[in-house]
Amino acid sequence: MATQRIKNGSVTSPKGFLASGLNCGIKKSKLDLGLVVSSRAATAAATFTKNTAKAWPVLWSEEIIDRKSHWAIIANSGNANCFNGAVGRRAVLDTVKHLARELEVPAQSILVSSTGVIGKALPVKNIVDAIPALVKSLSKDGGNRAALAILTTDTCTKEIAYSFPIEGREVRIGAIAKGAGMMNPNMATMLCFISTDADISKPLLKKALRESVTETFNQVNVDTDMSTNDTVYLLANGMARNRKIVKEDRSYRLFLSHLKRVCRYLAKELIKDGEGVEHICEIKIKGARSDFDAQKIARQIASSMLFKTMLAGEDPNWGRVVAAVGATELPFEPKKLDIGFERIKILQHGRVLKKNLPVVRKALKRKEISLEVNLNLGRGQARFLTTDLTKAYVRINSWYTT
Amino acid sequence: MATQRIKNGSVTSPKGFLASGLNCGIKKSKLDLGLVVSSRAATAAATFTKNTAKAWPVLWSEEIIDRKSHWAIIANSGNANCFNGAVGRRAVLDTVKHLARELEVPAQSILVSSTGVIGKALPVKNIVDAIPALVKSLSKDGGNRAALAILTTDTCTKEIAYSFPIEGREVRIGAIAKGAGMMNPNMATMLCFISTDADISKPLLKKALRESVTETFNQVNVDTDMSTNDTVYLLANGMARNRKIVKEDRSYRLFLSHLKRVCRYLAKELIKDGEGVEHICEIKIKGARSDFDAQKIARQIASSMLFKTMLAGEDPNWGRVVAAVGATELPFEPKKLDIGFERIKILQHGRVLKKNLPVVRKALKRKEISLEVNLNLGRGQARFLTTDLTKAYVRINSWYTT
Repeated sequence: MATQRIKNGSVTSPKGFLASGLNCGIKKSKLDLGLVVSSRAATAAATFTKNTAKAWPVLWSEEIIDRKSHWAIIANSGNANCFNGAVGRRAVLDTVKHLARELEVPAQSILVSSTGVIGKALPVKNIVDAIPALVKSLSKDGGNRAALAILTTDTCTKEIAYSFPIEGREVRIGAIAKGAGMMNPNMATMLCFISTDADISKPLLKKALRESVTETFNQVNVDTDMSTNDTVYLLANGMARNRKIVKEDRSYRLFLSHLKRVCRYLAKELIKDGEGVEHICEIKIKGARSDFDAQKIARQIASSMLFKTMLAGEDPNWGRVVAAVGATELPFEPKKLDIGFERIKILQHGRVLKKNLPVVRKALKRKEISLEVNLNLGRGQARFLTTDLTKAYVRINSWYTT
Repeated sequence: MATQRIKNGSVTSPKGFLASGLNCGIKKSKLDLGLVVSSRAATAAATFTKNTAKAWPVLWSEEIIDRKSHWAIIANSGNANCFNGAVGRRAVLDTVKHLARELEVPAQSILVSSTGVIGKALPVKNIVDAIPALVKSLSKDGGNRAALAILTTDTCTKEIAYSFPIEGREVRIGAIAKGAGMMNPNMATMLCFISTDADISKPLLKKALRESVTETFNQVNVDTDMSTNDTVYLLANGMARNRKIVKEDRSYRLFLSHLKRVCRYLAKELIKDGEGVEHICEIKIKGARSDFDAQKIARQIASSMLFKTMLAGEDPNWGRVVAAVGATELPFEPKKLDIGFERIKILQHGRVLKKNLPVVRKALKRKEISLEVNLNLGRGQARFLTTDLTKAYVRINSWYTT
């Protein structure tokens, strides 16, 4: 029994999780309302946007997340339920009240998410009317429908599940996510719902989630520029019946490493499906004076529009990388700088390797590419994922309807 | 005698300034080498990029700027003379040596600028060979040719001059500039050469320039993201024979206000001519807790790609403004927020004024528009200029040659 990616795995792959999705009329015909339910009270952890214009479902879920147990996540697309006055708050309360009645669980055990346009009243009657059908259609195969129901400009669902042993017991982690937008430096809403049948204490669940999100989603999404609705939920229902994880032992580390794997996969899928994205680039910084400096440099390159358009043009214009490094205002030594794409150096100790340019130009045609920058000043390092900036991105975002 | 904009005014409008421009072969046929000379030793002030990957001409000019007097500015386009090894330093030394000989002035009195592609050797022989002809063609009408010689992706020259009285004496300020790129959050090189025949002490000249640049160019160009070559030079030769300005009196304030006027005009022209720019937007923030907060909010909106694509689409999607305000992580009160375009409110105390939407939609078709955001929390305010993000921008920057 080893780690295994579950075929067609989704948020319903872990034991005891059911899901469903349907169209309730917020969108014309696409699915727009999804539900994930645990058949046993689950322990929950979450990370929320730091944006100070928080959507109503975020405010609600922040209020209840510290409770002992949670049963469900309900989410709609097509409307962010954000910045629409007191009716938005009312809409969340109505939703959880009706769903609580239908599921026979406390309203305060229901987590909520929304994604879509800001500033419009959420047609909550549609949601309330659809709840009985939504609950009735809950199933073990419903993960995909729930994943479909949270999409906005995404072109495909993002789903995954792994199974792996903890002290001889088979444990599963599954998830669905949505993103699109250009992620960085933008404000496309990112939603991710993760389920697990592992038995783990609430403090450790929170810790594992925080660490995983920091190292994955936050490396593609500049955290000072989050959307009003960004949320990651993680529900653990203990149905794998492993010995409960209560300290940072080997079992915890196993759980954590698989959780990161799930998050890393989804983070990459999200940016690959970003609006108009034709190339993604993993930026690897080495040799900075500290990890903090390396992080700063990685982010500066990742958010440079000149670098992003360069990726779109498949053009090894390394001068734009140098300019972005310098734009951090961190001192560096030109004579020590190495720059490469796809492990082919084009700048070594500050000198251009002209003979490599044609090879690099060819390598930049790949959909997934890597950029390596070594400052050769210290041991600081960082990684960051970014996308190109294409004409298609501009077209999509110019005409996104108000 | 009142303030007057000089017809066809340029950097040569102030007394005693001559200029010239020619093609020396860095570019195929367009002008690529420009010269501005004062016929009397001038007092100089400058502001330089904070980028730590500074171009060679910036390093040279920083070294000599504190000297007592300066005579000339020489500038080339088509090559940034940056990050090309020790030959780049050598190229600057050769240039000033030859020009000094030709003008019969000290090499250390010559300021230098370059703009263009990073990382290529500057063909300094072309420059040196062209210097005699460049000096020979210096003329009172040469401002326009010097302005042409510094352009890169700009579509037109930026030139202006004002004359105004100081204690009964006619004083002039003239200038040329180049920019393009999208300015913010980008790294298009901004060069601006200002001349004046005012007589003013060096400390006050520096002070006036710093204040003017902060309030104008730095409000369109996020200063942590400057190019490797950004430079503003100001030469004052005293030939207007006003009583020398040596303290912050009325004469100083008059000089300062006209200097700001020149800079403000050029800053606006620069962003109007930004790559692929179809709309420019003046962002006005009011009612923040402090000017610092207001500034932070203005910059966040100005650099939001979703806001910029919204401008391109002429779509009053005020939700993107709210999301950008919140993305600063500064607390604000939704119920107090006012948002308007072109002085037409679309959000008042957090409520949408639906009836105004069609009018606003129409107003957004204008080339120059304003966005007003009032947080109604305090007295902090700020202004910032930004541009839209169009498909043309992406096209230009994807194929800018390496």
